[in-house]
Amino acid sequence: MILLDGKKLAEKILDEVKKDVAGLDEKPRLAIVLVGKNTAIEKFIEQKKKAAKSVGIDVCIYPFDQAISTNELRKRLSEIVHEKKNTGVIVQLPLPEQIHVQYILNAITPEKDVDVLSSRAIGNFSTGRSKIMPPVAGAIKALFEEYGIDYKNKHVVILGAGNLVGKPTALWLLNEKATFSVIRSSTRHPEEFLQQADIIISGIGKPGFITGNMIKDGAVLIDAGTSESEGPSTGLGVKKLVGDVDFESVAAKCSFLTPVPGGVGPLTVALLFKNLVAISPHEYP
Amino acid sequence: MILLDGKKLAEKILDEVKKDVAGLDEKPRLAIVLVGKNTAIEKFIEQKKKAAKSVGIDVCIYPFDQAISTNELRKRLSEIVHEKKNTGVIVQLPLPEQIHVQYILNAITPEKDVDVLSSRAIGNFSTGRSKIMPPVAGAIKALFEEYGIDYKNKHVVILGAGNLVGKPTALWLLNEKATFSVIRSSTRHPEEFLQQADIIISGIGKPGFITGNMIKDGAVLIDAGTSESEGPSTGLGVKKLVGDVDFESVAAKCSFLTPVPGGVGPLTVALLFKNLVAISPHEYP
Repeated sequence: MILLDGKKLAEKILDEVKKDVAGLDEKPRLAIVLVGKNTAIEKFIEQKKKAAKSVGIDVCIYPFDQAISTNELRKRLSEIVHEKKNTGVIVQLPLPEQIHVQYILNAITPEKDVDVLSSRAIGNFSTGRSKIMPPVAGAIKALFEEYGIDYKNKHVVILGAGNLVGKPTALWLLNEKATFSVIRSSTRHPEEFLQQADIIISGIGKPGFITGNMIKDGAVLIDAGTSESEGPSTGLGVKKLVGDVDFESVAAKCSFLTPVPGGVGPLTVALLFKNLVAISPHEYP
Repeated sequence: MILLDGKKLAEKILDEVKKDVAGLDEKPRLAIVLVGKNTAIEKFIEQKKKAAKSVGIDVCIYPFDQAISTNELRKRLSEIVHEKKNTGVIVQLPLPEQIHVQYILNAITPEKDVDVLSSRAIGNFSTGRSKIMPPVAGAIKALFEEYGIDYKNKHVVILGAGNLVGKPTALWLLNEKATFSVIRSSTRHPEEFLQQADIIISGIGKPGFITGNMIKDGAVLIDAGTSESEGPSTGLGVKKLVGDVDFESVAAKCSFLTPVPGGVGPLTVALLFKNLVAISPHEYP
């Protein structure tokens, strides 16, 4: 079994981003909209700040009260998006219950939407007209390329269809001539799909859900469960980084596996900054 | 085996559309952009004209030369879209080889995009912010509802990922908490998927590809192959309406089956006009 070293690949990507940033006239700046407070979210923000600092990108945090209304947040977000210095804007998920999430995300214009979460950015991505990829899908693609894993002639099973992992991964594979299945909590016999999968991409946020007896020998396991634990579907109670994969039993049977932490998570952060530079309006000198 | 009577359901939907149209101050008008000439396309146009007439909707055909450039077509299409009298605009597919299809489709604004093919309309649909559905997906949903076919707790296998059938169907099921697989010409063992499928939705445009021995007893077969034969992937040579399903052998084994013609085809046309009325800017008196 080979561990897919997301941390190392993230560093490689961030090195490239750093070089790109050095060549720019003006520094890109990532605006992070943060509603409410909790320790899990703060941890993710810290990771992004640290990565940004390492490549010379500015980060500007815009904190808002937990009780803010959808209309007020949308208004404030529009101002943040129109601020010229912010070359990329993300809204840290999950948002509080009272917020209409997609309406908020749609205030981000496609040329600043580095998370690819607005309807327009998703539409552009889905029709092959986006310069950037949703960060988790980009992270998985980068891993496959780095480790020479063929995914186009395999059966990929996507576990969960959340906005941060399952859905963008499905949109990506739909355009990639790949063969894939999407299974979710309503699926009657998930084990039948997992047993047949050459590649499993999991983003359900259920610690240790996938065990060795569920998979076939030599399967490739991409555990993006922790990324999804940032997402709206799993709530705010996550205290530490845990994946969907039961590491010991799966490691004994699979061919490739992403560790948690150190797998998809840091790569997703690196891809976010790669996106920021890729859609930066600043020209090279 | 029960035949899914798309023609009858289409008439029912068109009756409702007719009532809606009668209540409008101004008639909706569908603009159809037609590039080049061929008998298959003209047949599809005739079907749309006939349905439009039956419900009191005007149709305006805009013919262009087969040799038109992408830039010229985009410019002309923009004018057609901005013409106030055109409340819906579609581009008849396939377009000639030299045309950049998605760039053309993106000239249609979401509020007139009754085929849901522009990046913006697809993005809105994909994020649950569309009032209308892509016509083929809407047609399939209407059939499932009419015949009480549960698709959310089944395994749906989508054959092909073209812009008119497979892709919009996958986007729809992604948002519907359904369990589904997407297989295509590159899939190594399509028969393994077909054998397990509770519901098969086919849009590959390969006459008689699915035979009885490939499916399981009691499967539901949605044959949208002819709709896809309008699409860019299959070329212009289609002379008659044939489906992806080998009717005799499949009919002997499945539980529900759409005939060709008289299945998904006429329903898709009906859904197009349902969409036109649903996004009509005209208010009821």
